[in-house]
Amino acid sequence: MRDLKWSPPEKAAARRAFDQALKNELEELVREAKGMAAAVVEASDLWNLESWLAERRRELDRKYDYRYSVLPIVFATLVKQGRITEKDLHGLAPEKVGLILGLAHSL
Amino acid sequence: MRDLKWSPPEKAAARRAFDQALKNELEELVREAKGMAAAVVEASDLWNLESWLAERRRELDRKYDYRYSVLPIVFATLVKQGRITEKDLHGLAPEKVGLILGLAHSL
Repeated sequence: MRDLKWSPPEKAAARRAFDQALKNELEELVREAKGMAAAVVEASDLWNLESWLAERRRELDRKYDYRYSVLPIVFATLVKQGRITEKDLHGLAPEKVGLILGLAHSL
Repeated sequence: MRDLKWSPPEKAAARRAFDQALKNELEELVREAKGMAAAVVEASDLWNLESWLAERRRELDRKYDYRYSVLPIVFATLVKQGRITEKDLHGLAPEKVGLILGLAHSL
C-alpha cells in the first residue's frame, strides 16, 4: 500500500474525494453541535459539550489523514461508513479502487 | 489570612455567598455559550467555542477555590468584579468583611 504510485490526476481526484467527505462530515458536526448546544440547560451540559467537541476533533484528526501511504485505508473507512461511494473514487486507477473496496469490505 | 478562624455560622454564610456567586456566573456562562453556539457557522467556529469553553472552565476552577485559607481573596476578587457585594457577606465577622473589602480595594 505504501508503494503505490499516485499520478498527478489521481492525486487531484483523491484530494477532491477527501475534501468533499471532510466537508460533509464537518457540516454534519456543526449541525449536531448546534443542536446539542441549544439543548444545554446547565453548566454540566456545557462541560459535556466541551468534552464531546474535543473528542470529535481528535477523532476527525485521526480519521482524515491525508498521507498517500495511508490514503487507501482512509478511503476504505469512509466507504465502510457510507461517507464516500465508488463513484467518488472516479479518477483513481482501477487497482486502487479495487484495493480500497476490498479493504472496506474487510473492515 | 491563613490563621483566621471561621465559626460554623460564618462557614455557612461563606458557603452561601460562594455558591450563589458561582451559580450566577455559571448561569451567565450558559447563556453566553448558547449565544456563541447559535452563531456558529463552520467547523472553525466550533473549535473556537471548544477552546473558549475549556478556558472558561479552567478560569472558574481557579477562581472558585473554596479553601478557608484563600477564601478572603476569593471573595475580594468577586467583590472587585461586582459579583458579590458587602450585603452578600452578611454573617461574616466584621474583621473578615473589612479584610475582604480592603483586599478588593487593593486588587
